[in-house]
Amino acid sequence: MKRIALGVQYNGADWLGYQVQPHGQTVQNKLEQAIERFACVKLGTTCAGRTDAGVHALNQVVHFDTELERAEHAWVRGINAFLPESIGVRWARYLPAAPAPEQEFHARFSARSRTYHYLLYNHQVRSPLLAGRAGFTHWQLDVERMREAVKPLIGTHDFTAFRAAMCQAKTPVKEMHSIDIERHGDMILFTLRANAFLHHMVRNLVGSLVYVGQGREDTGWLGELLAGKDRTQAAPTFMPDGLYLSKIEYDEKWGLPQEEPSILPAF
Amino acid sequence: MKRIALGVQYNGADWLGYQVQPHGQTVQNKLEQAIERFACVKLGTTCAGRTDAGVHALNQVVHFDTELERAEHAWVRGINAFLPESIGVRWARYLPAAPAPEQEFHARFSARSRTYHYLLYNHQVRSPLLAGRAGFTHWQLDVERMREAVKPLIGTHDFTAFRAAMCQAKTPVKEMHSIDIERHGDMILFTLRANAFLHHMVRNLVGSLVYVGQGREDTGWLGELLAGKDRTQAAPTFMPDGLYLSKIEYDEKWGLPQEEPSILPAF
Repeated sequence: MKRIALGVQYNGADWLGYQVQPHGQTVQNKLEQAIERFACVKLGTTCAGRTDAGVHALNQVVHFDTELERAEHAWVRGINAFLPESIGVRWARYLPAAPAPEQEFHARFSARSRTYHYLLYNHQVRSPLLAGRAGFTHWQLDVERMREAVKPLIGTHDFTAFRAAMCQAKTPVKEMHSIDIERHGDMILFTLRANAFLHHMVRNLVGSLVYVGQGREDTGWLGELLAGKDRTQAAPTFMPDGLYLSKIEYDEKWGLPQEEPSILPAF
Repeated sequence: MKRIALGVQYNGADWLGYQVQPHGQTVQNKLEQAIERFACVKLGTTCAGRTDAGVHALNQVVHFDTELERAEHAWVRGINAFLPESIGVRWARYLPAAPAPEQEFHARFSARSRTYHYLLYNHQVRSPLLAGRAGFTHWQLDVERMREAVKPLIGTHDFTAFRAAMCQAKTPVKEMHSIDIERHGDMILFTLRANAFLHHMVRNLVGSLVYVGQGREDTGWLGELLAGKDRTQAAPTFMPDGLYLSKIEYDEKWGLPQEEPSILPAF
């Protein structure tokens, strides 16, 4: 039995989230069906981070165990042959054998950090070519104000103020490594890296940052929300359209592709 | 009666081309329905360049005549309220009154040039996030070879070799102003500017350029095809996914927005 990791990309606009559901309209349903058709055996898979309906992934990482021996590129082509065009395997890697089960690679537990991008179109008029691909606000946002506002979030904090009610995480305490905010013309790109994220955490943060960027709230507001630990005080959850699970970081010993997918303003 | 020009953007993947059809699943059908609902009167529209099924527009230009007086931004918001999210009006401008009908602005006949972009993803594995947004080839393409190959196409030529059988243009002679080919990582961006294009001309040119870029044909091949005027000798029509009608150039006297929409590699 060998363990394999896959890099999976998908357009979340077509799917009701990542995780398997009885209705079958999820990325995991389609991925496991495609693996089953290629491998001719039913296999369970484990992912690094479940994403919600409408949320995209540039490089989701998934692992599973199999006795089937195929070249890595054969796994990529074989599974892709049975996937819809809005889901695709980008790479496959056999993991090194571990001396004990608890030392094995695990897509979720071996991850050191997750990086999400949020792409926001900031223009007076919506763009049809960015529908489902970027968030949108017609309020002119001040990037400097938003950069100032995120400073209190860096480090280890209780992020209850930005946590969805249905969040299943064991703890609301997460370590935020960095939040970068860049403007490229009419596009604003948010890049958030943390050890892990709570349910809706990025979209809740972006929603509140938009309030600060438009001048509706002060730059100190996010720090106050964080300290207050009350979800009802923060802004509404921002639309999923612009959210991308972009990178999962692992120890180099696993030998997984660590390319930083570039996500640039498109139009 | 006043003439209005609109800048229209759309994601062609959702529509069976631009031009009105009885089945109604075209951009023009949806646009005229939306104008009718906003203006409460049926209006005919004329566009700068009809696009095929699956082909996008960053800035299609459309004109129509109306007696209804509304602010320009009211036309934008009002029509957008009745359009599906994959079609949108970006701007509206009243045209100056003309002393004679033949001197009036005309979206098609007043155009000096059209610019198309073709976005091509050049990677070993397809990208789900670029499905419907970019062409794809797994052959590693040599951009320098393709740049060399397009040189004989610049200037005024009979482009019969790259013309679709059903093309309705009066003449196959067109003036190609420029063809730029740039690589951005795994993306190749083709930018073609001409006074006008024949049906399928860009996609036929890109198909043949891919043959040159992969080394299957020599750099002199496109010049030979052009001289031979035989459509059956060129490569098959390339997929519509990566084709964007990007800019229509008019005389400055019309006062239309001439912003160059930036189309950069997205992922």
